[in-house]
Amino acid sequence: MNRPQLIEKMVEKIKKLPGIGPKMAERLSYHILKMSQNEVDRLVDSIQKARTGMKSCSVCYNLSEYDPCPICSDLKREHNTICVVETPQDLIAVSKVKDYKGLYFVLGGSLSPLDAVGPDDIRIDKLIRRIKIGDINEIIIATDTDSKGEMTAVYLAEIIKKLSVKVTRLGYGLPVGGDIEYADEVTISRAIAGRKEM
Amino acid sequence: MNRPQLIEKMVEKIKKLPGIGPKMAERLSYHILKMSQNEVDRLVDSIQKARTGMKSCSVCYNLSEYDPCPICSDLKREHNTICVVETPQDLIAVSKVKDYKGLYFVLGGSLSPLDAVGPDDIRIDKLIRRIKIGDINEIIIATDTDSKGEMTAVYLAEIIKKLSVKVTRLGYGLPVGGDIEYADEVTISRAIAGRKEM
Repeated sequence: MNRPQLIEKMVEKIKKLPGIGPKMAERLSYHILKMSQNEVDRLVDSIQKARTGMKSCSVCYNLSEYDPCPICSDLKREHNTICVVETPQDLIAVSKVKDYKGLYFVLGGSLSPLDAVGPDDIRIDKLIRRIKIGDINEIIIATDTDSKGEMTAVYLAEIIKKLSVKVTRLGYGLPVGGDIEYADEVTISRAIAGRKEM
Repeated sequence: MNRPQLIEKMVEKIKKLPGIGPKMAERLSYHILKMSQNEVDRLVDSIQKARTGMKSCSVCYNLSEYDPCPICSDLKREHNTICVVETPQDLIAVSKVKDYKGLYFVLGGSLSPLDAVGPDDIRIDKLIRRIKIGDINEIIIATDTDSKGEMTAVYLAEIIKKLSVKVTRLGYGLPVGGDIEYADEVTISRAIAGRKEM
């Protein structure tokens, strides 16, 4: 006997989600079948409400219930500084740093020639347009520190410098609370280069 | 900034699913937000349809769109042999074996004193009732071979033998295609005890 059609279809759909293999999809499906109808309704409802309710802010492309988002429409923030991040999740991580009072821009990914992601596939155009029309003093590039994030940072810096806008990149070094023993060579070398007098 | 309320709620619900940690729940949530409305609808629809459409067969407690399920209502099968499994997934695994023509019974778990799962928490009563009212020759116990499954098998065997019904347990030994080098001691010892003349 194979799995009943209805279960098979659910497993198929769940299997398409990132990081979910066939075994995990099966486990989740059978768990859902054991949940009460009420619990399933609440799960499904939370998914549908988030999907319909969250919009992309037309200024920074962060996900928000409002457009423009609360950050972009906050007049107390410094509107002449923009921190460029890859994803909305990265934005949330940076926004936990209370010292930063500027705005954001969500690129929607990073350049990745191997995955055929070029400059036209992320929001580089839109970032440039925003810099051109706004009164921007500084762009802080906070893309990931992997090779794709680095490549994107270098690419962006080159274009933005031509617009006579200051471009900075988040500082490299040892993560706080880290153990030097486990830090990689490149990180230590960057930490040495960025050493500060005590 | 914290995550927007709508996303937070979805993450919370997804995090409750088994094997999904906070990071994975976040990853899945943001993936869902990037899916098209159409794709989200199809995912949600497959979940709702499976949850509402799948019933528990009132004879064997397998999940099925019909009650009784196609196996229990198949008159060509041997209705005097019942294979007892822990879950509907186990039933599907056993049912792939074409030689077995009997029926099934899904216990809905295994005895586990540590998790406070006793005989009343799985369908032991219902199995006994089914044996008593039916014309049953043999009960094949196919619970897992971990300690909980073993305990359940021993417990069931004791009760069922009192009803003068033959009780068997799936044979132990080396899995087919396995490498003896990696087999554990207990399995090898069982395989020796169960050796067959060639």
